[in-house]
Amino acid sequence: MSVEAPAPRHIRLTSHAGGYGALPIQWGAATPAERGPVVGTTTQRSHRNVIGTHSGSYSVYRALAVAAGALSRQHKADLTNTAPTDEIGPYPQWSDPGRIVSLDPWGAVVSQAFAAELAAGYDIRPTIAVTKAHVVLPEVIDALQKGRLRADGRILTEGGAAMVTKAAIEPVWWLPGVADRFGCTEADLRRVLFEETGGMYPELVTRSDLEVFLPPIGGQTVYIFGNPRDLANPDVELTARVHDECNGSDVFGSDICTCRPYLTHAIEECIQGAQRGGVGLVSYSRKEGRALGEVTKFLVYNARKRQAGGDTADQYFARTECVAGVQDMRFQELMPDVLHWLGVRRIHRLVSMSNMKYDAIAGSGIEIGRRVNIPDELIPADARVEMNAKMAAGYFSPGPAPDASELKNTRGRRLEP
Amino acid sequence: MSVEAPAPRHIRLTSHAGGYGALPIQWGAATPAERGPVVGTTTQRSHRNVIGTHSGSYSVYRALAVAAGALSRQHKADLTNTAPTDEIGPYPQWSDPGRIVSLDPWGAVVSQAFAAELAAGYDIRPTIAVTKAHVVLPEVIDALQKGRLRADGRILTEGGAAMVTKAAIEPVWWLPGVADRFGCTEADLRRVLFEETGGMYPELVTRSDLEVFLPPIGGQTVYIFGNPRDLANPDVELTARVHDECNGSDVFGSDICTCRPYLTHAIEECIQGAQRGGVGLVSYSRKEGRALGEVTKFLVYNARKRQAGGDTADQYFARTECVAGVQDMRFQELMPDVLHWLGVRRIHRLVSMSNMKYDAIAGSGIEIGRRVNIPDELIPADARVEMNAKMAAGYFSPGPAPDASELKNTRGRRLEP
Repeated sequence: MSVEAPAPRHIRLTSHAGGYGALPIQWGAATPAERGPVVGTTTQRSHRNVIGTHSGSYSVYRALAVAAGALSRQHKADLTNTAPTDEIGPYPQWSDPGRIVSLDPWGAVVSQAFAAELAAGYDIRPTIAVTKAHVVLPEVIDALQKGRLRADGRILTEGGAAMVTKAAIEPVWWLPGVADRFGCTEADLRRVLFEETGGMYPELVTRSDLEVFLPPIGGQTVYIFGNPRDLANPDVELTARVHDECNGSDVFGSDICTCRPYLTHAIEECIQGAQRGGVGLVSYSRKEGRALGEVTKFLVYNARKRQAGGDTADQYFARTECVAGVQDMRFQELMPDVLHWLGVRRIHRLVSMSNMKYDAIAGSGIEIGRRVNIPDELIPADARVEMNAKMAAGYFSPGPAPDASELKNTRGRRLEP
Repeated sequence: MSVEAPAPRHIRLTSHAGGYGALPIQWGAATPAERGPVVGTTTQRSHRNVIGTHSGSYSVYRALAVAAGALSRQHKADLTNTAPTDEIGPYPQWSDPGRIVSLDPWGAVVSQAFAAELAAGYDIRPTIAVTKAHVVLPEVIDALQKGRLRADGRILTEGGAAMVTKAAIEPVWWLPGVADRFGCTEADLRRVLFEETGGMYPELVTRSDLEVFLPPIGGQTVYIFGNPRDLANPDVELTARVHDECNGSDVFGSDICTCRPYLTHAIEECIQGAQRGGVGLVSYSRKEGRALGEVTKFLVYNARKRQAGGDTADQYFARTECVAGVQDMRFQELMPDVLHWLGVRRIHRLVSMSNMKYDAIAGSGIEIGRRVNIPDELIPADARVEMNAKMAAGYFSPGPAPDASELKNTRGRRLEP
């Protein structure tokens, strides 16, 4: 199946005699009228034009709410006053065939884009929400106190609050395009998604007419420092990090990895970039433990720290592969979609050392200027194992990569003190 | 269907002529041999004795790995050196009927508990992993510098690292027991879980013989300060917080709520408690935005901040209900299970103001001594709206709850500066 957008089809508001039917989705069409809304409602089954439903894995909690009698299954969201605080797009990328396959670019503006369908009784829910926030990070306050950052009342307050626009984005997968990204056929993708999840959503294999899947997985959140419209202007300096969730470090500050230090360093870079007239972007994806989940991650920690010879950089990837079967399950292939949703064409400063992220972004047609890595003094001692292993594996670093003997000698703490 | 454990059945290692078959699960049995392993493998379908598969929602990424040709579908985890760093249980609660229904108490020790079945070729995976970590939080370093905390080299280092034991736990639902918690029949629970997720896992309704479900949702992580065995000793002072994920605050420090301040305050209390001979516990559940997900949460933020009269405490719950249909979808009914897995019988200091959490814990038979709320100086100005709304709604507070006029006058920032 091709990832080219098919020829326009007209919306049929009443596809079945005697009532409303499911509206067609023509993925990648240039206008919402041609594209059609994503309808994942559970209240009126005949309206559904997707596999799965809204809110990712939280649909399971929604079900519990109905089971407990706390939520009416007929509830429709009252979307009064919920519209985005900032206009994002539309950008040419939204209808560039195959450029966006894992989110709905019109997902933030369903109230306006699909007003007619909403008025006709379709339960259309936003899959993206855009709001404003003041974010206060202790590391930013520290940078302010040490003079690395300065308050300007626009991007950063005296109290250390960074003023951001942020967006939460649920996954919306157009299966032909997702299959194309992973280099397999759509039929294979559907079969494997069904079989390897233990039989989730048989419609994946029985309903090839439904091309859109709302998978029960975590989505992503973007934090924008400066004017969101500037993200689409290649002449405005863009500092960006695409960050994958690591709860143990991001929230609890575990010293075995550099996740939170990288994130807060990127935020500092984003603030500085925005203050010198640029714009900053942090995209945060729910892909805990390289998308292996935290149980597997902790099993790997134990295997690393107990192996003969101790936790050395030269065995770093091998231990993950023994337990998980792969070194990494994050698959950055879908990650650039959010950048195209924001209209990004050029990233001037990419705060990341990951070659997988770099290749995915560059391969999707976004120009990348400099790569900015984490300063040495922010790397916890125990995280040296991970850093050196990654550098030797070809991750970006401004200096030389460690050699075999250095990898053997880069050793983390053992489990017992 | 009753939640009492049925009479013991014997393990049948070969239930089908000509090959191994699925092993029975007798939920709540006193020994692993009687209970039987949870087999959610996708490599040998005839061995499966559950609905769903491992790793929660990350099974979708596992499927992508297979689709991309990166992972062999026959891969079995090599569990060498992955065993828990600390022994948890077994405790009497593990076989107290109906006490634990949403996790597998034997999930951390499958290698030992089900050695015979593993040797017989069953692919049995841990659903719990236990490891050690050093966690370094800026707020803890600040408390150390200000003299509120002191380093002792045992619980807290000079550098501000707290030494913890931590466990990641995947959900394993015994459906008869889950239904009982929510006061509905098992048949209703199964039907609603199927229908309200848009048709996820038809086995929920077609395979009533499979009583265990591995739902594709986030699990939880526990952080233990001090000796994990002390959690089960009601004479050792236990300081505890059960925290629900809020990425915007926990990671990014958004000032609209008190999530991270509450969490870091609890960690400070846990460290102090452990240092005076007690033990501390933080349980972190992946229930973003009251288990409504982040898109809904951000929609509610906009509705709150744009409503006529501004973002006032008296409208706080109403705005969530308009958008989501409920005020809260977290359902603390399953939350105490993790406490029973840890053997907890008494919490001396519960760091929380939530009545829902308090009621769920106390209702599950755990004694609660004092409740500890967040100090006023840690509440961000914009989060006053949430705090006052909660206090007026009956959440715990040592002082008087705000009256109607105070609620009307507790006002947050508007969207436009």
